[in-house]
Amino acid sequence: RISWISDIIVVVSPENIETMKSIIEKYGHKRVTVVEGGRTRHRSIFNGLKVFAKNEFSSCFLQKPEVVIIHDAVRPFVEEDIVSKVVMAAKEHGAAGAIRPLVSTVIASAADGCLDHSLERARYRASEMPQAFLFDTIYEAYQQCTDYDLDYGTECLHLALKYCKTNAKLVEGMADLWKVTYRRDLYAAESIIKDNLSQQVCVISHVKESLPQVGFLLTESLKSQIKVEAVSVSLSKNDSHLQNIISGQCYNFVCVNDKRCVIQDTQELVDMLEKSNIPLLNPVVLISVHLDMSENNPFSIGMEDLTTIKKFARETEKKNILVYGLLIQYK
Amino acid sequence: RISWISDIIVVVSPENIETMKSIIEKYGHKRVTVVEGGRTRHRSIFNGLKVFAKNEFSSCFLQKPEVVIIHDAVRPFVEEDIVSKVVMAAKEHGAAGAIRPLVSTVIASAADGCLDHSLERARYRASEMPQAFLFDTIYEAYQQCTDYDLDYGTECLHLALKYCKTNAKLVEGMADLWKVTYRRDLYAAESIIKDNLSQQVCVISHVKESLPQVGFLLTESLKSQIKVEAVSVSLSKNDSHLQNIISGQCYNFVCVNDKRCVIQDTQELVDMLEKSNIPLLNPVVLISVHLDMSENNPFSIGMEDLTTIKKFARETEKKNILVYGLLIQYK
Repeated sequence: RISWISDIIVVVSPENIETMKSIIEKYGHKRVTVVEGGRTRHRSIFNGLKVFAKNEFSSCFLQKPEVVIIHDAVRPFVEEDIVSKVVMAAKEHGAAGAIRPLVSTVIASAADGCLDHSLERARYRASEMPQAFLFDTIYEAYQQCTDYDLDYGTECLHLALKYCKTNAKLVEGMADLWKVTYRRDLYAAESIIKDNLSQQVCVISHVKESLPQVGFLLTESLKSQIKVEAVSVSLSKNDSHLQNIISGQCYNFVCVNDKRCVIQDTQELVDMLEKSNIPLLNPVVLISVHLDMSENNPFSIGMEDLTTIKKFARETEKKNILVYGLLIQYK
Repeated sequence: RISWISDIIVVVSPENIETMKSIIEKYGHKRVTVVEGGRTRHRSIFNGLKVFAKNEFSSCFLQKPEVVIIHDAVRPFVEEDIVSKVVMAAKEHGAAGAIRPLVSTVIASAADGCLDHSLERARYRASEMPQAFLFDTIYEAYQQCTDYDLDYGTECLHLALKYCKTNAKLVEGMADLWKVTYRRDLYAAESIIKDNLSQQVCVISHVKESLPQVGFLLTESLKSQIKVEAVSVSLSKNDSHLQNIISGQCYNFVCVNDKRCVIQDTQELVDMLEKSNIPLLNPVVLISVHLDMSENNPFSIGMEDLTTIKKFARETEKKNILVYGLLIQYK
């Protein structure tokens, strides 16, 4: 997804390696190497870093990067902006990590289970991911750290400080970087995906010059609610504007048409969606609106179109593209 | 909800006092006093505590409690168990509060925005709510604390320690005590409510002796999925077993019946639900199953029953009781 990242190492527990490889193949992810994880967080990260270290015996030798980004899969909503910020800061400072304000006050407990002291909330931050490091810095830190660090430590920034005297730059991240930890967090994550998908709609008009205002009025009334991209040129496989919208992860389309054979344009859009590389884990919604303004057409002809759309929709549903047909007749 | 709590003080910002009062009236909450909040968290809590302090000029003087519980409305999933634990601990130690393990490592930043040090995650805890205090202890602490504490402090346990030398007992709470902070947390909260509501179903059988196994088989097959309460006695307003189930916040009912006039039993159950004090913020689902085993009944008679149920359901829907009718005919 981010073009300037040259390699992605996914560290996975031994029992899940095959599953991970099949996911990577299924969705055609590129630049990905799967590495076996260790017993603890730090041991797993170290295993991932070793792939880049010079090693004559390693079969999957990859070129050592200047900067390495460390991220957790439990934080699925990471934007390119924060990744870029921590990388730039790591280049300058040797290490950098995303932080968030604390939601609750943090306290230290004494041995008897009573309060020892509480921390002033404003002076502390939650350390989140992603973090970035000069590769040599973090690799050196992992090589030097003790078994105790590897078994009980949780913080990469701490290792860089302790073993390489590198004070990481802290970068304020978005709230969506939170760690998906509890069952409830899965519902929260789902809500964020759904919210994002429903933020944008693309209105494609194929109406003749006589009635361009239909597409225009629809676009204007939708604009008060969500982000609207309007495309009024004729649909063709070379339409780069539409292709940009699709690759910008638009999942909602309204096609307005006053021709017969409404199915042809719908088919072309479905083809474009399939050929684009947008992940179809989430459903694409495509509403095909047929404006019937001719005086002569009997009602049954429009209905025939709808039946065709319905049959077509049953096929596309298997690909997670939901097609709906709407027939509007007026004289 | 918790009978041993004698008074509940709700501290609300001035602009929301009327709304809060109307909510209290609408849902018939008892033992509740609404108090105007202050500029900050501590000022609001202090205002709430003052209600119990001896004050000749106060119009709503309430009896001073031995122990006071402080809780945030943003933590809606508080169980009686944890409330009881912090109260008992406060009686013994003077102060007590719920804690949770930290989800992320906590770090301290230096003035230049770089990492100063990171805390060892295992030694620290997130301070959550509820907290409980001997009233005299926390009131004394608030009376002594400075304007700086009132304006910038966040932690009641800290005030008890600083001004009354009381080291609060820390009590491990459930994960659901988390603070609803972000938009995504609302979805998470909704999911918890829905999960809870769907954990239990009550099967009520009115079938004649000839076919008791119908209710039995249904109960057995449901038991593998969720908690099932089975009631096979005849429904009457004095059925204390059923009343206990309703007040135990069961929101799902299946009534199996082989009599004519299925509507009468459904009506009686709806009456019981309305008279019980369970909050109908969440929908109650009531499936009325009519087993028609008579050889003589024409199909239309069963259908008539369904039509009656449908009409009845439209009425109960307004009260957030969703009634569904199911007709099973066999010879």
